Amino acid sequence: MPKQTPKTSKKPMPKKSPLAPKSFPKMPPIDGLWLGAGESGTKYKDRPDVMLVAVEKKSVIAGALTKSSMPSAAVEWCRTLLPKGVVRGVVVNAGNANAFTGKTGDKANYQLAAGAAKALNVLPEEVFVASTGVIGEDLKTPALLKTIANLADGGLSPTAWQNCARAIMTTDTFPKGVTRTTKIGSVEVNLNGIAKGSGMIAPDMATMLAFFFTDADLPPSVLRQLVNDNLPSSFNAITVDSDTSTSDTVLLIATGARKLSGKPIRSIKDPRLKGFNQSLKEAMQELAQQIVRDGEGATKFITVNVSGAADDASARLIALAIANSPLVKTAIAGEDPNWGRVVMAVGKSGEPANRDRLKVKIGDFNIAKNGRVIANYDERPVAKYMKGREIVISVDVGIGKGSSRVWTSDLTHEYISINADYRS
Amino acid sequence: MPKQTPKTSKKPMPKKSPLAPKSFPKMPPIDGLWLGAGESGTKYKDRPDVMLVAVEKKSVIAGALTKSSMPSAAVEWCRTLLPKGVVRGVVVNAGNANAFTGKTGDKANYQLAAGAAKALNVLPEEVFVASTGVIGEDLKTPALLKTIANLADGGLSPTAWQNCARAIMTTDTFPKGVTRTTKIGSVEVNLNGIAKGSGMIAPDMATMLAFFFTDADLPPSVLRQLVNDNLPSSFNAITVDSDTSTSDTVLLIATGARKLSGKPIRSIKDPRLKGFNQSLKEAMQELAQQIVRDGEGATKFITVNVSGAADDASARLIALAIANSPLVKTAIAGEDPNWGRVVMAVGKSGEPANRDRLKVKIGDFNIAKNGRVIANYDERPVAKYMKGREIVISVDVGIGKGSSRVWTSDLTHEYISINADYRS
Repeated sequence: MPKQTPKTSKKPMPKKSPLAPKSFPKMPPIDGLWLGAGESGTKYKDRPDVMLVAVEKKSVIAGALTKSSMPSAAVEWCRTLLPKGVVRGVVVNAGNANAFTGKTGDKANYQLAAGAAKALNVLPEEVFVASTGVIGEDLKTPALLKTIANLADGGLSPTAWQNCARAIMTTDTFPKGVTRTTKIGSVEVNLNGIAKGSGMIAPDMATMLAFFFTDADLPPSVLRQLVNDNLPSSFNAITVDSDTSTSDTVLLIATGARKLSGKPIRSIKDPRLKGFNQSLKEAMQELAQQIVRDGEGATKFITVNVSGAADDASARLIALAIANSPLVKTAIAGEDPNWGRVVMAVGKSGEPANRDRLKVKIGDFNIAKNGRVIANYDERPVAKYMKGREIVISVDVGIGKGSSRVWTSDLTHEYISINADYRS
Repeated sequence: MPKQTPKTSKKPMPKKSPLAPKSFPKMPPIDGLWLGAGESGTKYKDRPDVMLVAVEKKSVIAGALTKSSMPSAAVEWCRTLLPKGVVRGVVVNAGNANAFTGKTGDKANYQLAAGAAKALNVLPEEVFVASTGVIGEDLKTPALLKTIANLADGGLSPTAWQNCARAIMTTDTFPKGVTRTTKIGSVEVNLNGIAKGSGMIAPDMATMLAFFFTDADLPPSVLRQLVNDNLPSSFNAITVDSDTSTSDTVLLIATGARKLSGKPIRSIKDPRLKGFNQSLKEAMQELAQQIVRDGEGATKFITVNVSGAADDASARLIALAIANSPLVKTAIAGEDPNWGRVVMAVGKSGEPANRDRLKVKIGDFNIAKNGRVIANYDERPVAKYMKGREIVISVDVGIGKGSSRVWTSDLTHEYISINADYRS
């Protein structure tokens, strides 16, 4: 007799997101960098779950870490290392976030760094760590250390990008990569990035990690400016479910293998850096968007544009209020041009907005202006537009010149299934 | 051949929430007050959708209104009237929120107030209005005015509480009422309340409205203190989906029919008012909880207790971060004691918390303390507890003495079905 599937059944392999890019990009080597992925068997079967990256002497690093007051051991470790800006290795494990594990977790994290350092013949303080997966469980360090040692002993190559992008996945349904080739002055440089994330975070299954690597010759101070300049319009402009990870980590590493001619670059304002900064912005935005496209249960990629706000920060809060509203997200899942919910979300943001000057657009369709629906509004073409995969919502709140853009995904039955129907 | 149900199909009648109280309470008359419910046919078939309340001369009023910057016409109307504190009537319509309808909406709202005033032989500025339902559509005022006139003409009685509680429903699955009898000094007074709400708000289907009526003899200034004193622990302590309505309205009306002996009461601190204040708090909390119990798709009633915070305001923000987290709410829907998501939510709140002193309890079960899971944690009894209808989550963030309590419901497939699967 058939029985109801029990709650404790094994979670089925999720299907690849319908919003995924067609393929993983071809990524060139980065001079001075080797990487590889291994299987520790600590959580997953038959898939890589450990990434090890080794970079040459004089490599430098900058980054950004979660603002959560409950950070993982790896995040706390990286926070102490980042000010020095020096790096020789990165180790990442998927399946266990080593978060909320107390002093045991701090020790385990140090063991990972020290193990990788020993294997790479560098100092522990030169090895950055990221952990993603279940929170509250102790790391299985012996198996991880063995995998790291094996990788360092002949398991690294200049080209294992896709394998590494797979090794850092948790509930992701596709590996995420991006690449750009650009020039700094007359010197051609490469920039590669890989990332993971599929809920803005679900501590036992997702989190946002992104790693960028370049062979450009830039000091840590400039890397820091580059990261800070591009975070607001990329990884800080996405939301899947409004939940923030204990482990979010973005790192940018430069090996310096491609030496610049001329004076060293000291500031992001150096005109030679314009092309590289633009490429980094594009790469960060592309990976941020890929994370949204892999949002748990996502069937629509949503862009929220807010203009006419008091300032950019206010516009951002309004955009996030729209992008995080369960009612807006379910309406889009239902392909319902329910613009009233957008108005509600603007209202609840608490930010200045002029009800009687508010404008709402869905795609290229004007829906509302001057505080009410437009005359002779025809919902039919808008309803047809809502059936597409890419939805743009634009709101002018009629106050000032502030603007912001945020990306999100819809809220579907599949999100509930992923997060409620199966025991972790 | 069977076909898939089309998205545009008629929404099915939702089943009564499994968390509903067994029955509607027996509510006594309030001296000096008559009320009734009628069917305008403007939106719903075969159910009352208009409530009219008439109160005697010298009745007074206080209230609280949505903080949304996109308030409905009715909310703006009430906001101008409340400071006077004078009331002779209340008219409420369900099915159309008359929100984001511009100047047309303001005119329609005035017509409702003026129509009710004419029928009751009072001034328009003595009639409070609340509208709930679809936003962005113009009110069908002629049909509503006819219903109001009919009600005023012999359709009011001292006892139509349950009918009125039904008339103000939108997606609610049960009518919500509460009653208390208490004393002010030696005078016995009655307090009745009715409310509606089932999403914290969905602009085209829900919103929070609550109306309290008493025959006590209290001035508007004291009513205001009473409302303000009890809002934080009642209607401002609930959240279903974090969305805030354009129309939220809480009104407290006192007919003054039961005259006090002794000096007039001037302040909430008057010892004669202690019992009444307590009764009002209980009544407000009970209706607030009933709204959560009717949360769209709710299968669990969740209490979130936060203690050890920097102050009460900080505790409240942490409690709301937990109560609004889609990941916490889906875990509870899935009956999964996933305490890691609670830790994540504390972390994302942005409020001060000490990771290494954090304590988490589910029901009476200690789960985590000192920044990690307790020794020999046995999940089995906690998993069993999670199968119940009433779930309590308690967190001590290890910083100070601030505390707060918030109520919410779980996030289920049914929430998605209500809000995504059917076109409004």
